[in-house]
Amino acid sequence: MIGSGFIGRVHSNAFRQVGHFFELPYQVCCKVICGRDRAKLETAASRWGWDEIDTDWQNVVTRRDIDAVDIAVPNVLHSAIAIAAAQAGKIVLCEKPLASTLAEAEKMAKAARNVPNLVWFNYRRIPAVVLAKQLITEGRLGQTYHYRALYLNQSGNDPRKSNTWRYQRSEAGMGAAGDLLSHSIDSALYLNGPIRELSAMMHTFVPGRDVDDAVLLMARFANGSIGTFEATRFGVGCQNRNAFEVNGSKGMLAFTLDNMNELDFFDATEPLDSRGSRRLSVTALNHPYGEVFWKPGHALGYEHPFIATLGDFLNSIGRQEPFHVNFEDAVAVQRVLDAVERSSASRGWVTVDAT
Amino acid sequence: MIGSGFIGRVHSNAFRQVGHFFELPYQVCCKVICGRDRAKLETAASRWGWDEIDTDWQNVVTRRDIDAVDIAVPNVLHSAIAIAAAQAGKIVLCEKPLASTLAEAEKMAKAARNVPNLVWFNYRRIPAVVLAKQLITEGRLGQTYHYRALYLNQSGNDPRKSNTWRYQRSEAGMGAAGDLLSHSIDSALYLNGPIRELSAMMHTFVPGRDVDDAVLLMARFANGSIGTFEATRFGVGCQNRNAFEVNGSKGMLAFTLDNMNELDFFDATEPLDSRGSRRLSVTALNHPYGEVFWKPGHALGYEHPFIATLGDFLNSIGRQEPFHVNFEDAVAVQRVLDAVERSSASRGWVTVDAT
Amino acid sequence: MIGSGFIGRVHSNAFRQVGHFFELPYQVCCKVICGRDRAKLETAASRWGWDEIDTDWQNVVTRRDIDAVDIAVPNVLHSAIAIAAAQAGKIVLCEKPLASTLAEAEKMAKAARNVPNLVWFNYRRIPAVVLAKQLITEGRLGQTYHYRALYLNQSGNDPRKSNTWRYQRSEAGMGAAGDLLSHSIDSALYLNGPIRELSAMMHTFVPGRDVDDAVLLMARFANGSIGTFEATRFGVGCQNRNAFEVNGSKGMLAFTLDNMNELDFFDATEPLDSRGSRRLSVTALNHPYGEVFWKPGHALGYEHPFIATLGDFLNSIGRQEPFHVNFEDAVAVQRVLDAVERSSASRGWVTVDAT
Amino acid sequence: MIGSGFIGRVHSNAFRQVGHFFELPYQVCCKVICGRDRAKLETAASRWGWDEIDTDWQNVVTRRDIDAVDIAVPNVLHSAIAIAAAQAGKIVLCEKPLASTLAEAEKMAKAARNVPNLVWFNYRRIPAVVLAKQLITEGRLGQTYHYRALYLNQSGNDPRKSNTWRYQRSEAGMGAAGDLLSHSIDSALYLNGPIRELSAMMHTFVPGRDVDDAVLLMARFANGSIGTFEATRFGVGCQNRNAFEVNGSKGMLAFTLDNMNELDFFDATEPLDSRGSRRLSVTALNHPYGEVFWKPGHALGYEHPFIATLGDFLNSIGRQEPFHVNFEDAVAVQRVLDAVERSSASRGWVTVDAT
Repeated sequence: MIGSGFIGRVHSNAFRQVGHFFELPYQVCCKVICGRDRAKLETAASRWGWDEIDTDWQNVVTRRDIDAVDIAVPNVLHSAIAIAAAQAGKIVLCEKPLASTLAEAEKMAKAARNVPNLVWFNYRRIPAVVLAKQLITEGRLGQTYHYRALYLNQSGNDPRKSNTWRYQRSEAGMGAAGDLLSHSIDSALYLNGPIRELSAMMHTFVPGRDVDDAVLLMARFANGSIGTFEATRFGVGCQNRNAFEVNGSKGMLAFTLDNMNELDFFDATEPLDSRGSRRLSVTALNHPYGEVFWKPGHALGYEHPFIATLGDFLNSIGRQEPFHVNFEDAVAVQRVLDAVERSSASRGWVTVDAT
Repeated sequence: MIGSGFIGRVHSNAFRQVGHFFELPYQVCCKVICGRDRAKLETAASRWGWDEIDTDWQNVVTRRDIDAVDIAVPNVLHSAIAIAAAQAGKIVLCEKPLASTLAEAEKMAKAARNVPNLVWFNYRRIPAVVLAKQLITEGRLGQTYHYRALYLNQSGNDPRKSNTWRYQRSEAGMGAAGDLLSHSIDSALYLNGPIRELSAMMHTFVPGRDVDDAVLLMARFANGSIGTFEATRFGVGCQNRNAFEVNGSKGMLAFTLDNMNELDFFDATEPLDSRGSRRLSVTALNHPYGEVFWKPGHALGYEHPFIATLGDFLNSIGRQEPFHVNFEDAVAVQRVLDAVERSSASRGWVTVDAT
Repeated sequence: MIGSGFIGRVHSNAFRQVGHFFELPYQVCCKVICGRDRAKLETAASRWGWDEIDTDWQNVVTRRDIDAVDIAVPNVLHSAIAIAAAQAGKIVLCEKPLASTLAEAEKMAKAARNVPNLVWFNYRRIPAVVLAKQLITEGRLGQTYHYRALYLNQSGNDPRKSNTWRYQRSEAGMGAAGDLLSHSIDSALYLNGPIRELSAMMHTFVPGRDVDDAVLLMARFANGSIGTFEATRFGVGCQNRNAFEVNGSKGMLAFTLDNMNELDFFDATEPLDSRGSRRLSVTALNHPYGEVFWKPGHALGYEHPFIATLGDFLNSIGRQEPFHVNFEDAVAVQRVLDAVERSSASRGWVTVDAT
Repeated sequence: MIGSGFIGRVHSNAFRQVGHFFELPYQVCCKVICGRDRAKLETAASRWGWDEIDTDWQNVVTRRDIDAVDIAVPNVLHSAIAIAAAQAGKIVLCEKPLASTLAEAEKMAKAARNVPNLVWFNYRRIPAVVLAKQLITEGRLGQTYHYRALYLNQSGNDPRKSNTWRYQRSEAGMGAAGDLLSHSIDSALYLNGPIRELSAMMHTFVPGRDVDDAVLLMARFANGSIGTFEATRFGVGCQNRNAFEVNGSKGMLAFTLDNMNELDFFDATEPLDSRGSRRLSVTALNHPYGEVFWKPGHALGYEHPFIATLGDFLNSIGRQEPFHVNFEDAVAVQRVLDAVERSSASRGWVTVDAT
């Protein structure tokens, strides 16, 4: 584990919990946690049961007794570590966004071609989001017309946060676009397929910040639908609203992370007098991950999609099956982010390059 | 029209509006409005277009040029007026609750036997409530297990209101029971059939008040289901929450006046993975009154069920068909209220007498 | 009244009801209803109490016994009628959007300069929307960051509607933009001030239609905030969702027509542990129109903002005070719609001309 | 750990997770899991990391290398194990309800007097519920008028479940009362203090079942407020709705497990025009357990209150401070359940004996 901040804690929890819920082909051993601050590392290691600590990631990624490297550090550091780990033949797991630029992301994907790899786009594995995907795949929405995504938090409105790494281009690469929009884009690509072209606007409210505080986006998808996206750190009133809605010829889906155990589904093929938006509690046994965690009606929380991501990944390795979200998938997200930057600069529509 | 207070205003509106939305066999003429305060009457008459005013209801109810008498005065005055009007052969409309005691109500029903009569239990004609009735009648809930009703407002917590007629036994007969619970009981009898027996508790929070501020109730219905009711003027936080829920073997219905254009319907016969509570917007053309008022998706408000009540009533007279809620129906409500008082006094279960 | 379709019915209701709720300086007399279809006119006249019918609007607008002309016909007919009525010195009321092009709208505003005039942007007078304006004006949101508007209905997905006037450029001028987006723009200008520049995309899903089925829009407001708008007739699952949200440095407001009696208000200046989105039931006596209609907790419906619009208009004439939304205000909306068309055509950002 | 069913799994998770989130005075070692079915025990032990398995609880509870015994077996077995463990000087943790009768519960409490003891009324430690307690304690609700609790699930409507232990008096003691109502009672005693007297009704819908399928309850609390409770296994449409509402002279609180990260708070002391129910996302740093788990806006799930219960318990032992819910507290719940049974049998009000 490279990194011991908040997201390192979330990943540590996933490593600790995955075997309690998933039948796995491997036993997970928490070997070493690596970072810059020895005191912090010691606390993290003792709390989460990492055998050792280290302050030099270069040592760690080449150790022979290590099979997998998980990267939970600021974006700008992802590529060097991931490439080194991949070159050392390790399984590589990387926090999102994959990189701070498209070029870096492409290099990483190339380097990781021959090792199992994962990017922690955790929201794809919320049971309600997987159910949305199933309903779309089954054709329950018909032809898609509209995709609509919001990712609103209020972190940017807090002046104390201006100096953290997420507000520095040199550390984060992008602002709200990398941090928040990347999640929305990943979900959109998953649920609604590729984006052909887009027109975007990045905006910084606070003078002196060199990353975007907010980003707006209109898009045309390959399937003929059109979309809007908004991601902002100035969504005062919303702590972590990651929401999407899809309108199709046969119905509508709506999800918000504010209520992550539910999915709203409107089935326009129902008789007119009993047609309405259904609030699905996505905790039934036959729902995604319904037999993995607790019981019907028993809510999951923020950490469970991470556990599910890891469980699926380890099983995919065992079965030698493809896994998503992998580095290639994350490059597709990065291509959209790159188009966002280009469009915002040129103030016009730009094409999103296909792979 | 006897009475020119708030509810008289609501009834006046119904008389004015009914012909705009309903095809009627009669033309409604607003002849005379009657009350104690001449100045108030003049304002009301000019505002709502009543031809004349009068301060003596006894004159009014026997006038030959008057076909119908609408009673919108404190409960204790209902019976004298209604009986006189019925004896004069008038169509009688009476605000709920029908009377301040069961005995009075029975006398009124007897007197009105031979004239068309109506009691303004308006909430029965909210489209969402009528749809609930339809779904139950179609068997969509299966066997009913639970009926659950709340009527919460916060009027009692306002000390300025203690002296108004609603807080005096001599004027109102009962407190929350007559004012609020009577609505819940009428809806329950409509939706779930007769109550066999009940155990109730009336409670007064404010010393010196001689009517109930709140009433709680457990009930056994004739259909084998069991019910709870709570009506209170101390439901601080709720302005006018008239809500019910029904659980049956095949599903659930939930309604609240807070959102009167919607009905929640859970269909337990749906496949498990797409089963959820549907929020029906009860404004479709094929919904109750869907062609009477505006368009799908266009909300109705507080006054519309009154207009619908009057429209249906006038048409029932024209067609010589039975109309509900009539005085007999309201006596059934009063029988339950009487049982509530007896049970509260005896601190035990009591039978609700059948007709 | 020129026009006897759905919206003519809504306006007729406002004329009938305005005197019941507002103290007015004038008595409203419903003289003549005018349209093309004599049978339809007769029904409408008898239902709503119009004294006469006429099939030639040119006769009507110049009659000496008529003071006011209300225009409730397809968009393309607005200008000729409005200009003739204004030139005849009549008070002119016109359904929205004011015109089918900016040029027409400007001509109309010029013609109506010297007569009292009104455009029926009714949603501005929903009590919850007026309260939103008050809270913003009082500074309760602080500096505005984001304005976000949706107007989603599903009318376009119904193939039977393709031939009606709303789907013909020759009758309607625009599609979703004129029909739906115009409402969102009016509300935005009211609540958040002028739009400086925008980038928009109009889209038609159904081959053969010559108006937009949907329109997306990113905007920069003069106050430094940024906005997104989406209006569509393909929002399957939404019957009439006219919603907006505003995030500011001190809080957030959210409104949706699905629940028109409520406004969500998040006050970010509250102590952290009891900070949350408040669901305001905008029916209190001291709320906008709180003393005009019913009682606290008693819901208003679709028609009430029309009544309020008319009541305020008639009183503004009596007091010789300015009234909004007038033709000039509606020209400002039309300027934005014009920019939307230009931007969509040029696929780039365009400036919205100031007056 | 005695028991390896669903709830044993939930407790195992708490033992595994508590050290990751809480700073503890002890290291938790998972020694032995005990049950009847060896194969099931082996699976559980390997999944959750229990060192050993055993099929004889009597062996286990006296082992010298064991400090604490956790009881997660059917209700009727609680007392023998708990008493034996307490007599052996062990820390005792017991699943709720404490026992199948009041007499048993009292014996258990007596036996456990001198050892640290805990009953897993987990819902008390949901952050939103703790916040409710804080607001009440601070006087934010003023004088309490109404307490209203629902616990609705639909397990009883599933005929396959009739033969499980929860539907047998000999195994479970009670039905919905012990399983569901006990939670509501514990929360009520915590939030609103002792119940003085009550009138209850137990009902069984399915012939042949000897436990209650549903229980209704009216209550008078020592603080002068009145309450209603409903717990049922026939609440079709509700998977696990554990909800309460409290109305006081100054405000209202509402909670439902359907949305366990939120608490609704209506503050009636706010100015009238901005008064409304606030939806508090109880995930802020200064909320209960706000610094223990993830970050603001990051939802907790079903398992977290169990972890919090265990963390608080272990710390209370370390600090030699009292802990709640202990066996004595659970006896108070059992006294109410006993009164419920007596009242249901006698069809009248009964007093709840004070300790």
